[in-house]
Amino acid sequence: MQAVVKTHRGPGGEVRTVPDPTPAEDEVLVRVRASSICGTDVHIWKWNEWAQERVRTVPMIFGHEVSGEVVRVGARVRSLTVGDHVSAETHIVDGTCYQCRTGKMHICANVQVLGVDRDGVFAEFAVLPELNAWKNDPSLDPAIASVQEPLGNAVHSLLPEDNIEDLAGKSVLIAGAGPIGLLAIAVARTLGAETVVATEVNRVRADLARKMGADRVFNPVEEGDRLVPAIREMTYGRGVDVACEMSGHPSGFQLVFDALTPGGRVSLLGLLDRPTTLDVDASLIFKAARVHGIFGRRMFATWYQVKGLLALPAFREKVGQIITHRVPIPELARAMDLIDSTQAAKVSLEARW
Amino acid sequence: MQAVVKTHRGPGGEVRTVPDPTPAEDEVLVRVRASSICGTDVHIWKWNEWAQERVRTVPMIFGHEVSGEVVRVGARVRSLTVGDHVSAETHIVDGTCYQCRTGKMHICANVQVLGVDRDGVFAEFAVLPELNAWKNDPSLDPAIASVQEPLGNAVHSLLPEDNIEDLAGKSVLIAGAGPIGLLAIAVARTLGAETVVATEVNRVRADLARKMGADRVFNPVEEGDRLVPAIREMTYGRGVDVACEMSGHPSGFQLVFDALTPGGRVSLLGLLDRPTTLDVDASLIFKAARVHGIFGRRMFATWYQVKGLLALPAFREKVGQIITHRVPIPELARAMDLIDSTQAAKVSLEARW
Amino acid sequence: MQAVVKTHRGPGGEVRTVPDPTPAEDEVLVRVRASSICGTDVHIWKWNEWAQERVRTVPMIFGHEVSGEVVRVGARVRSLTVGDHVSAETHIVDGTCYQCRTGKMHICANVQVLGVDRDGVFAEFAVLPELNAWKNDPSLDPAIASVQEPLGNAVHSLLPEDNIEDLAGKSVLIAGAGPIGLLAIAVARTLGAETVVATEVNRVRADLARKMGADRVFNPVEEGDRLVPAIREMTYGRGVDVACEMSGHPSGFQLVFDALTPGGRVSLLGLLDRPTTLDVDASLIFKAARVHGIFGRRMFATWYQVKGLLALPAFREKVGQIITHRVPIPELARAMDLIDSTQAAKVSLEARW
Amino acid sequence: MQAVVKTHRGPGGEVRTVPDPTPAEDEVLVRVRASSICGTDVHIWKWNEWAQERVRTVPMIFGHEVSGEVVRVGARVRSLTVGDHVSAETHIVDGTCYQCRTGKMHICANVQVLGVDRDGVFAEFAVLPELNAWKNDPSLDPAIASVQEPLGNAVHSLLPEDNIEDLAGKSVLIAGAGPIGLLAIAVARTLGAETVVATEVNRVRADLARKMGADRVFNPVEEGDRLVPAIREMTYGRGVDVACEMSGHPSGFQLVFDALTPGGRVSLLGLLDRPTTLDVDASLIFKAARVHGIFGRRMFATWYQVKGLLALPAFREKVGQIITHRVPIPELARAMDLIDSTQAAKVSLEARW
Repeated sequence: MQAVVKTHRGPGGEVRTVPDPTPAEDEVLVRVRASSICGTDVHIWKWNEWAQERVRTVPMIFGHEVSGEVVRVGARVRSLTVGDHVSAETHIVDGTCYQCRTGKMHICANVQVLGVDRDGVFAEFAVLPELNAWKNDPSLDPAIASVQEPLGNAVHSLLPEDNIEDLAGKSVLIAGAGPIGLLAIAVARTLGAETVVATEVNRVRADLARKMGADRVFNPVEEGDRLVPAIREMTYGRGVDVACEMSGHPSGFQLVFDALTPGGRVSLLGLLDRPTTLDVDASLIFKAARVHGIFGRRMFATWYQVKGLLALPAFREKVGQIITHRVPIPELARAMDLIDSTQAAKVSLEARW
Repeated sequence: MQAVVKTHRGPGGEVRTVPDPTPAEDEVLVRVRASSICGTDVHIWKWNEWAQERVRTVPMIFGHEVSGEVVRVGARVRSLTVGDHVSAETHIVDGTCYQCRTGKMHICANVQVLGVDRDGVFAEFAVLPELNAWKNDPSLDPAIASVQEPLGNAVHSLLPEDNIEDLAGKSVLIAGAGPIGLLAIAVARTLGAETVVATEVNRVRADLARKMGADRVFNPVEEGDRLVPAIREMTYGRGVDVACEMSGHPSGFQLVFDALTPGGRVSLLGLLDRPTTLDVDASLIFKAARVHGIFGRRMFATWYQVKGLLALPAFREKVGQIITHRVPIPELARAMDLIDSTQAAKVSLEARW
Repeated sequence: MQAVVKTHRGPGGEVRTVPDPTPAEDEVLVRVRASSICGTDVHIWKWNEWAQERVRTVPMIFGHEVSGEVVRVGARVRSLTVGDHVSAETHIVDGTCYQCRTGKMHICANVQVLGVDRDGVFAEFAVLPELNAWKNDPSLDPAIASVQEPLGNAVHSLLPEDNIEDLAGKSVLIAGAGPIGLLAIAVARTLGAETVVATEVNRVRADLARKMGADRVFNPVEEGDRLVPAIREMTYGRGVDVACEMSGHPSGFQLVFDALTPGGRVSLLGLLDRPTTLDVDASLIFKAARVHGIFGRRMFATWYQVKGLLALPAFREKVGQIITHRVPIPELARAMDLIDSTQAAKVSLEARW
Repeated sequence: MQAVVKTHRGPGGEVRTVPDPTPAEDEVLVRVRASSICGTDVHIWKWNEWAQERVRTVPMIFGHEVSGEVVRVGARVRSLTVGDHVSAETHIVDGTCYQCRTGKMHICANVQVLGVDRDGVFAEFAVLPELNAWKNDPSLDPAIASVQEPLGNAVHSLLPEDNIEDLAGKSVLIAGAGPIGLLAIAVARTLGAETVVATEVNRVRADLARKMGADRVFNPVEEGDRLVPAIREMTYGRGVDVACEMSGHPSGFQLVFDALTPGGRVSLLGLLDRPTTLDVDASLIFKAARVHGIFGRRMFATWYQVKGLLALPAFREKVGQIITHRVPIPELARAMDLIDSTQAAKVSLEARW
């Protein structure tokens, strides 16, 4: 088959012909119908510091956001059959560690990540463990089906636990309107938030943020010191109930605490890449703030939420809008350029070889 | 002032001239702008068994759903001023009992109910404790502002605690589409439920249930044994995640358990009036069901949710649609006839004397 | 090997020589060191109505509470090795249904029960799926290790969810001091409850209930109408915060609601065997009660709680005290007589053949 | 009456004769029976940077931990009478702000603190709002009754919300064994934790930590890099489930994250006084950690927990042990020296004038 392979420990990747993969007894073989690019893929493509340290084996096929059709099932697979449409949950877990056995599979002590620790999905075919192959409604657009994983990140950021305050009539801040931030805006709107405010410097993304339903989108650089007062003014002077850090920028990290109402909650998704300073007393203690570190999404409570939301036509249509570009998988280099251009939100990859 | 007074321990009520009420130090005087009729008012009007036992003092002005304008404030009132638009939370609490001191004011051990234990709101003016006068957006239609209390019941039924599973992508059953059931349908839809199914025998209300956003409205009498299988079919064969009993009928009480997915949750709001039989093993234990008895609404977490939802134009418009009739307060007898006619959902009372 | 086999669809069971079982790839073979008798075993032994309907296949080895040593592991087993000491979680699940994928494995839509749906543990050897073999501290007394499953029921009744009010300084009622009720008393005491009150008619069990730490044990028959007032008096006049129904008797079912403080919670574990009548308005709605149906125990959050509690010497010693009799497995008939005699709490079965 | 008064904006305080205070309509007058010293009092005594900025009015009587007897009640007081034994909740709230109306009174937007914003309790008599006067069991030792507020901090740190994972069989780290840390150890032990590990540099406090029930007490300076591995070894290699930062030291702040199991939770109580640096990615995001800022204690859910725990003799006795010194209130200067000496845990103040 054809696949995009990281052939050596350095930038880029190559389209190569490699042997077709074979599913093990508890795995399925999937013909890729669509894929999409995550920040992780960009890191691996550029071979930045994180990738150099994190990726252990090359050559490796990378990519992990995917939807496709099951074309073969291992002997022990029970819940899937040939012809099923599926997407991938990227976290491959051991099922027996403390985290897995207590409802926290997504932070399995021995997690392996698709397209990072083993061959991924920028290919004609991909192998998935049965548990990781999430069955889709066959009528779902493959490009949308492929972005369910970042959509899951967005939902998980807003609802990090089963038992967590709902968003009904609440105010929500999304700091950073990259693809996951954009999805989070759409989700918050769909879950009954009264006020959704976002920050974003990139104009293309700021426009999309408004389309996703943000009441206001601030450019944090332009607003400067007026930003927090402006957010308070939109929230009866109280500050927001829920704040999601999705920019990966220290200013966003500071903002989610400054804009929070006492007793509110913060979800941290954007990686900051380096140690960051915080006035813990003022930001966390006196505010009685709660903070959730967000990694992956719950397996599979979040996936059911995502599936249910995508069944709503208005929401599904919004999700479609964040896919600003569609590029064939073999043209991954061009897709990477698009992401660098600041003109793109989500870049979908089509299975045209 | 003019008021509708229960003058004797028997059916009906009379419009009478009574002295203007005077607010105590921690109370406010409100000029009524709109009121609305609750089931409780119907019971008191008809003087049924419940009313005979529950109402201790006549003569008494009854009614408790209200919106109006503050025209006088007691000496110790801090959070309200003359001119504020307010609605009433009906539960007047002691603030110092176990329930009040542990976040459950709505089930205060010494609760007094407006229009039941003390003079209510079917009058030109009404007195409210400061804590019970909920400040409204002045631009809110007084008729809608007046139905916030039953809207609160609907929200509280769907989200009975702060920390309770959200409705994102979930399936919801509303058994019984009276005014609170109708509002619950609209709320569930606004909070991102995937599937909302309702039951109702009355055709006017069934039509409204569809307008509120129910995917399907079943007539439980016509469906009979097909009802539960039909609901399962709409929910991937699983049964609903959340079921609200709002019919007050034993068949609805049975249905919410039969239609529930294992591990799902039930909220019971509709009063059954008599002891009811249940197969506890099958309905509750083997299903690991959770049940919430719903009384009033949280003070004031639910009110904030209601306020936030009413700020959404599409939701506000839906709430307006359940007000099928508007009648001047002095014509309460006619309003009661309308309710009996099965042609009405919510009857709003206008402050025209 | 030797095993106690239900040989025909009728009362009793026989010790027979049967072929040694062979573990599948994802299973382990366990040499039984101790077992114990659950109510379910009594039903199957007596072949009551429930057993006649529920048990599908005979001949079958029954029994499910067990501890033992792993003597062989299937080819795909990763988390266990020969020599490990294990106990059994009885619920064998599919791992892919809605309940399994959303943290509710214990109510798997396709659950199979050890010793009911497939061969159990009243034998020299038993086969367990890897996931169901819970690793014990090797120093744990095998008899105590064997009662971890009912101990899990007790813990799960008191803490039915991860996010549920703790018992710190709370008042707890345990209606019915059978083995699980006794364990629940000990657990409540160990989790910081202020007041633990129990009901029990059997004198042997009532004495044990006091040893487990109950502040008072009432005989509900003798107390009659004084029971609820007596419980209120022990709880500042408020009623209990948490009530567990563990008697399986309609009077216990009524009691847990009558003795509950408004806003309190009830766990229902005891099967009532027949439809039961309740004044839903007074017991559930006006009280804003919450009810949890209890089936099995969480997999495996509850097991970790159990393991942690058993590491506390004082608690472990209490658990040992509920084992009133020890009988060799082949003398199961005698053990069943002991249970009928009302002289026993928990009967432990020793692996002496 | 006699009182300890901060007479000028500088270090120290003076015993002075001042007019007896008069309770307002909704207040009570309390004859002080015992008081105790909190870190806040030390700051005010020493007049450090925080005190200079925070204290607005002098002269002022300071101190806020207290127990005493009601000697006079305002005209509107309903829940208390002369002769009642009470302690003080220090946070005086408005009751009508967003936080107060949504179950978070302890972080009232307009909170006033006893002994900081208005006259406190280092005096013969003190005035408390009715809501803030918590009724004690009259048989409770006044010195213990006086430390219920810091005990509330300890409980609130371990159980920051109603719906939060219990401690049953869990592992707990208390970083810093000052008075609140010591109490937290005793509480964790009483709530069924399997493992309680603490850190403390001061030898007197480390010894007390063992008496409170810590399985091990590490000196973090001596342990250095071995500390985290040692904690992991005590927790099956997993790290702790719950970690409380009570040292106010940056190394403690780092430790609670390093020692945490993925998905665990952290409570931050100790003030750090200055911005602090954290590797947010590793400490929070990849770990899916949850963090609770702890300020005050819940009003009054925590107080009920405290009351219930203090009803347990073994626990009450432990609490008594942290009171290492008893000094008459007028000798406050000496008490402050004791605290500086590193020989004291909690210093109780006796009402001997």
